Amino acid sequence: MKHDQDFIKRQNRLTVFEMIKTQSPISRAMIAKKTGMSPTTVSRIVGELTEQGYVIESEQVSEGLGRKSTLLGLMDASVSSIGIELDRHVLNIGVVDLQGNLVHSESHERGIEEAPEVTVQRISDVLEHMLERGIAERKHIVGIGVGLPGIIDNGRGVVVFSVQLGWKNVALSALLEEATGLKVKVDNELKVKALAEHLKGSAIGSNRTALLGFGNGVGSALIFEGEIYRGEMNSAGEIGHTTVDPNGPLCQCGKAGCLQTYITIHSLLQEASQIRPIQSVEELFAARAAGERWAIHLIDRALTYMAITVNNVVCMYNPDTVIFSGELTDKFPEMYEEVKERCHSRFVWEPLRDSFRFVTSQLHEAGVMIGSGLQAQAQFFKLD
Amino acid sequence: MKHDQDFIKRQNRLTVFEMIKTQSPISRAMIAKKTGMSPTTVSRIVGELTEQGYVIESEQVSEGLGRKSTLLGLMDASVSSIGIELDRHVLNIGVVDLQGNLVHSESHERGIEEAPEVTVQRISDVLEHMLERGIAERKHIVGIGVGLPGIIDNGRGVVVFSVQLGWKNVALSALLEEATGLKVKVDNELKVKALAEHLKGSAIGSNRTALLGFGNGVGSALIFEGEIYRGEMNSAGEIGHTTVDPNGPLCQCGKAGCLQTYITIHSLLQEASQIRPIQSVEELFAARAAGERWAIHLIDRALTYMAITVNNVVCMYNPDTVIFSGELTDKFPEMYEEVKERCHSRFVWEPLRDSFRFVTSQLHEAGVMIGSGLQAQAQFFKLD
Repeated sequence: MKHDQDFIKRQNRLTVFEMIKTQSPISRAMIAKKTGMSPTTVSRIVGELTEQGYVIESEQVSEGLGRKSTLLGLMDASVSSIGIELDRHVLNIGVVDLQGNLVHSESHERGIEEAPEVTVQRISDVLEHMLERGIAERKHIVGIGVGLPGIIDNGRGVVVFSVQLGWKNVALSALLEEATGLKVKVDNELKVKALAEHLKGSAIGSNRTALLGFGNGVGSALIFEGEIYRGEMNSAGEIGHTTVDPNGPLCQCGKAGCLQTYITIHSLLQEASQIRPIQSVEELFAARAAGERWAIHLIDRALTYMAITVNNVVCMYNPDTVIFSGELTDKFPEMYEEVKERCHSRFVWEPLRDSFRFVTSQLHEAGVMIGSGLQAQAQFFKLD
Repeated sequence: MKHDQDFIKRQNRLTVFEMIKTQSPISRAMIAKKTGMSPTTVSRIVGELTEQGYVIESEQVSEGLGRKSTLLGLMDASVSSIGIELDRHVLNIGVVDLQGNLVHSESHERGIEEAPEVTVQRISDVLEHMLERGIAERKHIVGIGVGLPGIIDNGRGVVVFSVQLGWKNVALSALLEEATGLKVKVDNELKVKALAEHLKGSAIGSNRTALLGFGNGVGSALIFEGEIYRGEMNSAGEIGHTTVDPNGPLCQCGKAGCLQTYITIHSLLQEASQIRPIQSVEELFAARAAGERWAIHLIDRALTYMAITVNNVVCMYNPDTVIFSGELTDKFPEMYEEVKERCHSRFVWEPLRDSFRFVTSQLHEAGVMIGSGLQAQAQFFKLD
């Protein structure tokens, strides 16, 4: 696979593109030197990209011994993509530029029971409406990226299994490509979110980033030397179903003591209902602030399991950076310090205690849109 | 890093060497085609390897359009390495040939309290004795590889921390290089064992192998597209200190409910001593066979935690192959079926239940010697 010629060609094209994007102004010769590619290959790829209008030549500079070379740059405004976060209750749609900025975004409510066809039609409508208003130009949009929870076959663009959406074997890429006429890339939400934090957020420069997401589900994602570690079925990082207590409560999945039974929003609210009907995590945290001991207990236990999650991820992946993210932490940022303190004082294995940076998400809710938008762009420059 | 020129050069050299090794007889043109390297680069590397006596030219064949090309092969007998497994009670030293065969091995007892200098001297003595007896020729030995339990800085060759050996910050490579005059590569035992199984054992052809080791310690190692996944401090896979029950027994590391408190040989014997003095796992299994309920309980619980380990590793790494290995399983092979049954019926998350092959180790005790020997060879062909 690594030596597959076609794969190498596409990879080379993306490498040249990324180098111009991140290091421009840069000359052909410098690209060849830095990538180890032959000058011929670099010139061919640059030629293609120039012809297609993505790359422009700027001034000439001399590069030692009187030789002249031409500097290259990107036609920034010529490319953008649509990044979508699709979740149980919400549909966030944004426009992502070549530098990974979210230049526009809108949030739409979504019914829990919404069928795939309905969601696809709504995305298509929102997109049309955005184009009509001149928010993006169709000819500049190189593709759509979608991030959603569940096991996603990112190669075929199929939602294999998503408990949160209630979808099984949905060919989302195909449906959305048909509805919009654009290339679509579908992926697991935490994987694209981790990619976004690595490229544009709190994990820039990290070689091994583990992102933790605590919200309606629990999960993790690993970025290893700039690439998403996917595993065999693109479901690496499914820490929510690791067993943290064989005698623990039954999980929806049919096993006992899965991590997620202790810390998802759903589990917390369900357990809180033993006391009285609690509709939201805001109510739960208010009860804790008011000193109600059952709420103190539930949240204390959740914080402990979050620290345990950090430990388990650190032991398994040995990352240099751990990002604490998700709806719970976005809403209650004080959880970060509380988990950090627990990690340090008790729950992270001592030899690895100082081996990683523990940071909060920088992109918050924008992460999934930015990550999937950037992934759609990368896909475009690889395949085109 | 990936684009570092020197790194690419060394990597290319190893790639050409590996291709001749695994696919000979093969021509320069075929190597260029399969690797995507330029014919010039391939010819240069082949030239070097031939000059150094590792590669030979054999017959000429015609390759379409009447062109002739020369087939290449390896001078097998010209290269071997020493592979060492260093453990609490034992010192296994072997000779590994270019194809990864263990052509000779000897096992020596080792005192638990043995200081690094003493162990190094003993290795050096055993090696001298092997050379005197003509078991290996000094000029053919390209290096020594050592695999041992603990956190190993494989770059600097330092044993950062090994509970089993009681060593801390030992510059093992430097000591052993000084004593033997050979290049030394030191690594974590499970990492080289996993590499060996991937190259020569039960995980040939796998893209993502997770090896589990159950014995005096508990650990895992991941081979990802042919390479060891190391993490930031070469301690990825330290599953023994993941928390599987926050209310569990205290671990030597100071945390509670670490996986290893339930399944290491040491933990099992210690817990068994509540009933009566039990000196070995053989005695424990005999008690179980005799129907003693405490022994049935202990082993049953260990099997359950082993199945949980499989689940947690599968959820986190999403491998295509999981190898069940270690002293416990080498001694009691029946554990494999018992763990497999538990995985299938209860403990592995259903969406991933059929996503991996669950296999036993094929190399057993030879794995660490073979893996570290092969790693010493790879290092030699990269650096030389």
